Amino acid sequence: MAAPSGEACGLLERSVRQRVPPLLTDLYQFTMAYAYWRAGRHREPAVFELFFRDNPFGGGFSLFAGQHDCLLFLRSFRFTEEDVEFLRSVLPCSTDPAFFQFLRGLDCSGVTLRSVPEGTVVFARVPLMEVEGPLAVVQLLETSLLCLVNYASNAARFRLAAGPGRKLLEMGLRRAQGPDGGLTASRYTHIGGFDLTSNVQAGFLFGIPVAGTMAHSYVTSFSSLEEVCPQTLVAANGDAGPVDVISLTKGWLSRVCELLGSEPAKIREGELAAFLSYGIAYPQNFLPVIDSYSVGCSGLLNFCAVALALSELGYRPVGVRLDSGDLCGQSVEVRRVFRLCSQHFSVPAFDSLIIVGTNNISEQSMAELNRKENEIDVVGVGTHLVTCTKQPSLGCVYKLTQPLCSAAETRAKVQSSLQTLSPRHKRLQEPDAYTVALSETLHNLVQELQKCSSDSNNFLLAN
Amino acid sequence: MAAPSGEACGLLERSVRQRVPPLLTDLYQFTMAYAYWRAGRHREPAVFELFFRDNPFGGGFSLFAGQHDCLLFLRSFRFTEEDVEFLRSVLPCSTDPAFFQFLRGLDCSGVTLRSVPEGTVVFARVPLMEVEGPLAVVQLLETSLLCLVNYASNAARFRLAAGPGRKLLEMGLRRAQGPDGGLTASRYTHIGGFDLTSNVQAGFLFGIPVAGTMAHSYVTSFSSLEEVCPQTLVAANGDAGPVDVISLTKGWLSRVCELLGSEPAKIREGELAAFLSYGIAYPQNFLPVIDSYSVGCSGLLNFCAVALALSELGYRPVGVRLDSGDLCGQSVEVRRVFRLCSQHFSVPAFDSLIIVGTNNISEQSMAELNRKENEIDVVGVGTHLVTCTKQPSLGCVYKLTQPLCSAAETRAKVQSSLQTLSPRHKRLQEPDAYTVALSETLHNLVQELQKCSSDSNNFLLAN
Repeated sequence: MAAPSGEACGLLERSVRQRVPPLLTDLYQFTMAYAYWRAGRHREPAVFELFFRDNPFGGGFSLFAGQHDCLLFLRSFRFTEEDVEFLRSVLPCSTDPAFFQFLRGLDCSGVTLRSVPEGTVVFARVPLMEVEGPLAVVQLLETSLLCLVNYASNAARFRLAAGPGRKLLEMGLRRAQGPDGGLTASRYTHIGGFDLTSNVQAGFLFGIPVAGTMAHSYVTSFSSLEEVCPQTLVAANGDAGPVDVISLTKGWLSRVCELLGSEPAKIREGELAAFLSYGIAYPQNFLPVIDSYSVGCSGLLNFCAVALALSELGYRPVGVRLDSGDLCGQSVEVRRVFRLCSQHFSVPAFDSLIIVGTNNISEQSMAELNRKENEIDVVGVGTHLVTCTKQPSLGCVYKLTQPLCSAAETRAKVQSSLQTLSPRHKRLQEPDAYTVALSETLHNLVQELQKCSSDSNNFLLAN
Repeated sequence: MAAPSGEACGLLERSVRQRVPPLLTDLYQFTMAYAYWRAGRHREPAVFELFFRDNPFGGGFSLFAGQHDCLLFLRSFRFTEEDVEFLRSVLPCSTDPAFFQFLRGLDCSGVTLRSVPEGTVVFARVPLMEVEGPLAVVQLLETSLLCLVNYASNAARFRLAAGPGRKLLEMGLRRAQGPDGGLTASRYTHIGGFDLTSNVQAGFLFGIPVAGTMAHSYVTSFSSLEEVCPQTLVAANGDAGPVDVISLTKGWLSRVCELLGSEPAKIREGELAAFLSYGIAYPQNFLPVIDSYSVGCSGLLNFCAVALALSELGYRPVGVRLDSGDLCGQSVEVRRVFRLCSQHFSVPAFDSLIIVGTNNISEQSMAELNRKENEIDVVGVGTHLVTCTKQPSLGCVYKLTQPLCSAAETRAKVQSSLQTLSPRHKRLQEPDAYTVALSETLHNLVQELQKCSSDSNNFLLAN
């Protein structure tokens, strides 16, 4: 995975500024900020907590991500003259002009953001972020922060469902909520455990490895071998002159049909032309989609013929993509044919061909795929991943905390808190102890600290 | 509704350029474009059709929108040197360097976009757009066009469910798929029939009317009347000096409690302070959220007291927002109290107060709300609107059409087409006629044309 370039990092920061101007918020943040300002309360210290109420997808956890974008947003939070003039046009005309002067000078220099570390497992009702600063300013940040705090949870669930051995490719850009929704999805699914994305701009901005070869439209755009051009290829070692790769492939196709007992009449010439054309363009990156017509009667045979021709010329074909039907069953049959070709034609490269499966994969079908016999090495996921079909929103909230709460409120809290305790712990005489266990990490940390402390005591004694 | 300014239009165009660079696409578009280029097919004329396969949300139609963004995207489609260098780093190293030279010169000047008009009702399997141009170029456009063609269908369904009389407010920014997802949602829900948005940037860029007053956090940030500042207000006509609005409101609160038989002890002083503070800041735009504590025991009484005080000073309060519980039932009770106050205190302004309802509204709860007795004038919708919970993706596809298809293919099409016809229409002798009816509009058009034609014949005869 290539790290994003310095330019890309700069672009990312500029992109956050452009994507999240301070006007990208709900109007009521401004009317409230004005009311605070009018009452002279705008500089009062305030703390808001950002949290969600229920773990998403019916699961037991969520994942926190988005801190970096939040920091960039805070850093660039400043109103332009154009912003202020627009606000003047939409706020009630009774708004004191001095408020707009106040907005002109506003930034987040007085704001402190405390947050759980990026990428940590988080739970319902536990604050993910605490935003502390002047009341009017932290109020104005609410909507943008809620919008920026994204979650890698859905991708992480797909990762868990897929098991650790399989590579996962995100390919949901076309189904995302607008262009930036697509970028957001690519970024956070990578954070959540996906290995690859089809989104080139996500590769450019975030350094995520990109992948992809061909669509069905490429295959169906060919109808005959006459369209293949050039029709020759030089061997990988460059030794001999150009080889007539069409004749070579036709020869291999006959042998493959014979080996598998297939009918040459059912083979689609356009598909063979498409594979050959792609193989000639990218002889070291040959991975076609083989189900445009029929995997068993045409696509698999055409793949094997072109891949065997490329192998004969010293190139290493990569694999195939299955995009419809019973992915598991087909992958098993495809693998069987690869092994047969490897043995029969003595082409060991056929043992390491990869099979990519893509076909409207949901969390459920991913889990099923993991239970059934199959030979799929890479799974591509689009719609269900980027739209979070199962639960498209986490429902985070941003609540003002009240550390100055009244005696009566604290009294009520004490009572309700006591009610959570079992009577056997509340007995005034000889109560049962409430067991508080240390986690393994905390236990180890305590032991280490004790050791350090004893070492340091020894050191003091020695001196 | 303010039209977007010239600057905003320019911003919108720049924003599309920045949001949809030509790299915002799937990698396989580039590998395919290269293979076409390598085979000398990149300039071949091609036509792709963009359509969807099933009407969304289990309904009978969809709505088309996004044409304008598509046009801006095509107009600005051009690779920067940085884009080309990134592509060089991710495409296989065997890629011919001349391909990158080809990309440097690429634009959409040879591309024709035909589309159904923006905002039209559309149906499954009918092309929404036809993109015609050089094969490699129209291939490269696929993912971005699919991502840009958005749909106002979900908003239109909410509009239909709400009935024509009620105003609809979109307030989903915080639940959207990233910042731009929020802007996209605000724009297309407005197109789909929503009247207002809470999203200020959407107001700035697209001229959508913005609305919003206060959140619960504003209410809970106050705890006592001492926090109200300033404590005076000058009457609307400016005649008298500053009036002690706290005493005035306290007086009204007693009278309201007496009228409704309410217990003054249950009233939250902090809520009254918040309402008063807001009312002093915006005396002509007073619309608080009244369910932070209890609508019946506190919020409604506090609202009436402040609104009556404002009315006495010649201001016109706007209304209330309900954000939890049984919106319909509460709205009926709130309206009853408004009417009672109007009559009892002779304040006719109380007859035109509006009630806003916002509480996790779905298409289903909107339809229910339309069936039950209620007094809600404006409904605010967030999560279910912007995330399209019911079906978060339409699943549009972009398919290469084949007008040069073979005789065999045409023959097969003829056969399957004939199979769709009933045998009684296929009888070779005395077949039943297949009734083709004219729509009313078409019938009128034909009559008009006949009339024109007869007029023009008359004209010819006369000459």
